[in-house]
Amino acid sequence: MDTAVANRAIRLRRRPEGPVRAGDLELVEEPVPALADGQALVRNLVVSVEAASRIWMGHQRAFMPPVPIDAVMRGIGVGEVVASRRADLRVGDVVAGFTGWQEYCVADDSQLEAPLAVLPAPLPAPPAAFVGVLGHIGISAYLGVDHLDPRPGQTIVVSAAGGGVGSIAGQLAKLRDARVVGIAGGPDKCRHVVDELGFDACVDYKDPAWRERLDAATPDGVDLDFENVGGEVMDHVLMRLNLNARIFLCGMVGQYNAGSDRSTWRGLVNIDQIHMQRATMRGFIVTDHMDRWPEAIGHLAGLLAAGRLRPDETAVHGLHNVPAALDRLFSGATTGKLVVHLADPAGT
Amino acid sequence: MDTAVANRAIRLRRRPEGPVRAGDLELVEEPVPALADGQALVRNLVVSVEAASRIWMGHQRAFMPPVPIDAVMRGIGVGEVVASRRADLRVGDVVAGFTGWQEYCVADDSQLEAPLAVLPAPLPAPPAAFVGVLGHIGISAYLGVDHLDPRPGQTIVVSAAGGGVGSIAGQLAKLRDARVVGIAGGPDKCRHVVDELGFDACVDYKDPAWRERLDAATPDGVDLDFENVGGEVMDHVLMRLNLNARIFLCGMVGQYNAGSDRSTWRGLVNIDQIHMQRATMRGFIVTDHMDRWPEAIGHLAGLLAAGRLRPDETAVHGLHNVPAALDRLFSGATTGKLVVHLADPAGT
Repeated sequence: MDTAVANRAIRLRRRPEGPVRAGDLELVEEPVPALADGQALVRNLVVSVEAASRIWMGHQRAFMPPVPIDAVMRGIGVGEVVASRRADLRVGDVVAGFTGWQEYCVADDSQLEAPLAVLPAPLPAPPAAFVGVLGHIGISAYLGVDHLDPRPGQTIVVSAAGGGVGSIAGQLAKLRDARVVGIAGGPDKCRHVVDELGFDACVDYKDPAWRERLDAATPDGVDLDFENVGGEVMDHVLMRLNLNARIFLCGMVGQYNAGSDRSTWRGLVNIDQIHMQRATMRGFIVTDHMDRWPEAIGHLAGLLAAGRLRPDETAVHGLHNVPAALDRLFSGATTGKLVVHLADPAGT
Repeated sequence: MDTAVANRAIRLRRRPEGPVRAGDLELVEEPVPALADGQALVRNLVVSVEAASRIWMGHQRAFMPPVPIDAVMRGIGVGEVVASRRADLRVGDVVAGFTGWQEYCVADDSQLEAPLAVLPAPLPAPPAAFVGVLGHIGISAYLGVDHLDPRPGQTIVVSAAGGGVGSIAGQLAKLRDARVVGIAGGPDKCRHVVDELGFDACVDYKDPAWRERLDAATPDGVDLDFENVGGEVMDHVLMRLNLNARIFLCGMVGQYNAGSDRSTWRGLVNIDQIHMQRATMRGFIVTDHMDRWPEAIGHLAGLLAAGRLRPDETAVHGLHNVPAALDRLFSGATTGKLVVHLADPAGT
């Protein structure tokens, strides 16, 4: 390994107030340090950009600590080991984990948020699948739908229906013969959700008449809510809950770009309906359930192989495109899982 | 039975906007009708006034239908059968159920919300106990604490801690050796909750520094929330939730007096913490769990007999005092269960 190789990385320079602006993140080029014993060098093939990325930039009370100022941005990636002074990692191994928004990651377990997982060889799916349908995204969808347990005749609402988690969650619910109503931004995306992903209906939250359209799409009320967004759309869904409804709270992307002063936020007024309808709401973070990842991956891989699940992806190439991609993610302009492609495996 | 007996009853004349005002309710005097076959006449000994009474006056989407305009107000009471043309009710039986805010109730099962329950004779506790600690109030507290399952070392917050449900819930949690922090209105009530009911601490939500005091009273965060109130206090509690916290949503009395236009309500902004802390929230209505009432009553009666549970009561005499009592309830000026006493059992 030539130690003169340069690493490009995105460092967090400032906590954003509202949407990420120029100066919050910086793309830097810096030499890859020499490996010490117990370290390996991982070249990222893909890294994931997601709603939670915005959480990690801020200092709101969240499920992981904020990324320190000037640190490389936290990010889940799939990479290839290109040099190793670790007994457990060999050159050529493909690994997944918190490799960061950078081209090269010096991997020792003290630096990373969690140990890297070595993926099977040969890789049974493209690297991007392991930050998508066969990674934390698909697994969140699988575990959420498993928790909600949709039945024929029930209505399930899926917000951010065109996004990474939502698009898979809705397809999984449809495979259980529930009525699946998506919520997404824009008529094209809604058409895609219905025509390509097979949802029964999709409501465009940018349509001024979205409330009426959501009512019309859920004539028998809402039994289950796979909630990714929060905000006023969720608040309206609460008013449509049926008795014993269940809410799986997988994310609240609608508020991640809000300023840090919560007193200015618009709250949810219809939480009383959880009481009135004897509903339950459960907060969920996929990394709490590592024991169920093999089951989830097996199930999802089986559906993929059978052609019964369509994993959408919005591909971005190069770290320099990450800030613009984040903007598109929050404006609802991406479809499926947003993945940044950085390199191809050495064998290809 | 002299059919010339007059019944006094409170009829709902208008749906209140905000707090109940003169003209919303009317105390009427009307003759008791002659009994038909299948009817019994019940003389109410006590009737219950509670936060839910205000819900039933409105037309918000709730857990029971609104009381029709001009109907006698729905209310849970304990009464004595004074005349009967029903095979299942004998003169002298003491019954509990939805006997309404009135002195006499003509009881056939088609008129009432649910069948009346015949209480054991002789009555093992005063009639008021059966709309309080041994009725829906105590049973709500019992089932909620059972659901939350507080353990030694855990912190449980109980809102409306001086109220009917809260005062019992906190005592039950204390019997399980949890740290019990009440929230109540006014220094006298808070002192009562700590000194008489044995809570570890009680925060006065009318104190301008209530946020700091709540933080100080929950130095290790909040594991469990027995929620009766909602609003900004609950919103602050959400920010203190620990990992895997549980919220038992038994009521949201803080918003029952709000106007009917929800767009003017202050919402909960910190629901994201349910996601972040992987918390769960469960809405609860006690009448869904009639199968567990005998278990609950048995447990509560045992604690009462052993002197380990103190059931507080605010007694009001006569229906004419109901509107003022409702005001006191919503301003936090009552302690324990609010009961309207109407008559003594014939045998006393």
